[in-house]
Amino acid sequence: MTKGIKQSIMEIVAEDLEKVEIALEQNLNPNVELVKKIASHLLFSGGKRLRPLLMIHSARLCGYHNGFEIQFSTIFEYLHAATLLHDDVVDEAAVRRGKKAAHTKWSAPEVVLTGDFLLARALGIAAKTKEPEIISVIAKITRDMSQGEIDQLAKKGKLDLSEQEYLEIIERKTAVLIQGACQSGAILAAAQKEKEAALSQYGFHLGMAFQMADDLLDYTASAKELGKNPGADMREGKLTLPLIHSLANASVEDGKWMKDMIAAPRFNPDDFEKLKEKLYEYKGIQYTKDRAQDHVKKAKACLNGFSDGQSKQLLCLIADYSIERKV
Amino acid sequence: MTKGIKQSIMEIVAEDLEKVEIALEQNLNPNVELVKKIASHLLFSGGKRLRPLLMIHSARLCGYHNGFEIQFSTIFEYLHAATLLHDDVVDEAAVRRGKKAAHTKWSAPEVVLTGDFLLARALGIAAKTKEPEIISVIAKITRDMSQGEIDQLAKKGKLDLSEQEYLEIIERKTAVLIQGACQSGAILAAAQKEKEAALSQYGFHLGMAFQMADDLLDYTASAKELGKNPGADMREGKLTLPLIHSLANASVEDGKWMKDMIAAPRFNPDDFEKLKEKLYEYKGIQYTKDRAQDHVKKAKACLNGFSDGQSKQLLCLIADYSIERKV
Repeated sequence: MTKGIKQSIMEIVAEDLEKVEIALEQNLNPNVELVKKIASHLLFSGGKRLRPLLMIHSARLCGYHNGFEIQFSTIFEYLHAATLLHDDVVDEAAVRRGKKAAHTKWSAPEVVLTGDFLLARALGIAAKTKEPEIISVIAKITRDMSQGEIDQLAKKGKLDLSEQEYLEIIERKTAVLIQGACQSGAILAAAQKEKEAALSQYGFHLGMAFQMADDLLDYTASAKELGKNPGADMREGKLTLPLIHSLANASVEDGKWMKDMIAAPRFNPDDFEKLKEKLYEYKGIQYTKDRAQDHVKKAKACLNGFSDGQSKQLLCLIADYSIERKV
Repeated sequence: MTKGIKQSIMEIVAEDLEKVEIALEQNLNPNVELVKKIASHLLFSGGKRLRPLLMIHSARLCGYHNGFEIQFSTIFEYLHAATLLHDDVVDEAAVRRGKKAAHTKWSAPEVVLTGDFLLARALGIAAKTKEPEIISVIAKITRDMSQGEIDQLAKKGKLDLSEQEYLEIIERKTAVLIQGACQSGAILAAAQKEKEAALSQYGFHLGMAFQMADDLLDYTASAKELGKNPGADMREGKLTLPLIHSLANASVEDGKWMKDMIAAPRFNPDDFEKLKEKLYEYKGIQYTKDRAQDHVKKAKACLNGFSDGQSKQLLCLIADYSIERKV
């Protein structure tokens, strides 16, 4: 089934995707060679360009067809890349998109400053939209993401993280950017406020589903599929929904074992397999799938008010794909 | 003399300064307690608020008196603080504004993310100006500053740094932001393009003078005056104009001794005093003073086309102050 969705998506986006790739390269335009190297390392290592595509088709769904949507959509890939670079430093994650994380090849300061440069590029292109509302959206995204990351950092290793706290973290760290991409498409198209709100809500639910699916994959996918080792979140002390829900339902004994394992700096593969069994046993996996599925349903419902066509079809497919994907 | 200039400046700005302080606190508005702590640590530790004052009086010099200039001026203090936070991580500087650098109290990731938050605040307020040109200016500032810092990082310890390379670095790391503050004031006031360009040029020359004076102080001021140890730049492998010019004019023997000293990770106070003597002997100190003085002259000349009044007087005083100050 996944292959079917992915193929349908690719058929719709192939042409845009090529244009987005070209725009991403042309707009980058750094003066300093090292900045180009570091930024390109991340930017051109096979991203899905989900955020640009969402902005493009949100704009088109609202009747925008001026062609500028391709240029402006790069804003959201640059923003995404900027936050990934800063996150790499924050998480000290060793692998990102199957490649070595930027900061293991370059120093943390170089990576931080390249992130700043990408943010600046996003901003420079955003200024060209001449839409102060898009700038406000970007300001909100940056504000929420930075605070979400700090919040997550402060809550690292917190064994009693609640579902509510988890939801706030993933909203800020993931949903807000996807939401902003969709909303900005509507703003660019000068859509009615209700349509802008509907697309913003679509993006929010899609983002929540997307992150929950990501958090599931960290337990269910293989290292090869993920492009990084599974269980990475846990090793970094980040509790995600599969674990939070399972902990809430586990027997005292199993709960203690699970918490000890999270607190241990390293664990062997057998223990990780045993933990995964517990996540199935205590329904953490199923519960997370259900919540993600709820968000997908809500996301698609937000599109009801729009007329049928390729863009609506694509946004629906992306919603389905968000939880079906294996990477 | 310095005290005279400083007093004259304070008399003009005292009232605005109070309002700027209040606006800086009100606009900060973080959701996460830790962000507030880290941001406040830097933001409210006795900054001169030079950049907000420059924007305010550039706007007024162009006839803007709506009162919003106070709110909007905070953009440039937040931007400044954001870059200081990222620089702290980059430089691993131990002391800033006489207080411990943020990153020695908090982790580098926390400091980076708080910097991102401040950047987001700057952006959020900039969006409220509804002036896409101000956003473009901010984008340019962020782009140039991040690239300038990376460039400086790449050139750390480069013993043959040229005056031209030095000028490019300080333009990006200091002048661009001061220039942007002045230019944005003119944009806010919807000034004619020639006036905007004149204020932009004023800001550029002021920024260059300001940084050269800073680089002088690193050799000529005491630890108490500086709020940090003198010679810090050299210890970090950063060659600035006093040293660059002296190296170019030193005897082979003295040049070798100076280069050895720069390359040494530590040096004793006597050696530092001896180095300072060389900087006087080979005219590095005087040359830098002269170049800074040139920039001050050019900065003031940019104001010729404006009518006399308090704002023009202030901008002239600030230009003089930039090289007379002891801190």
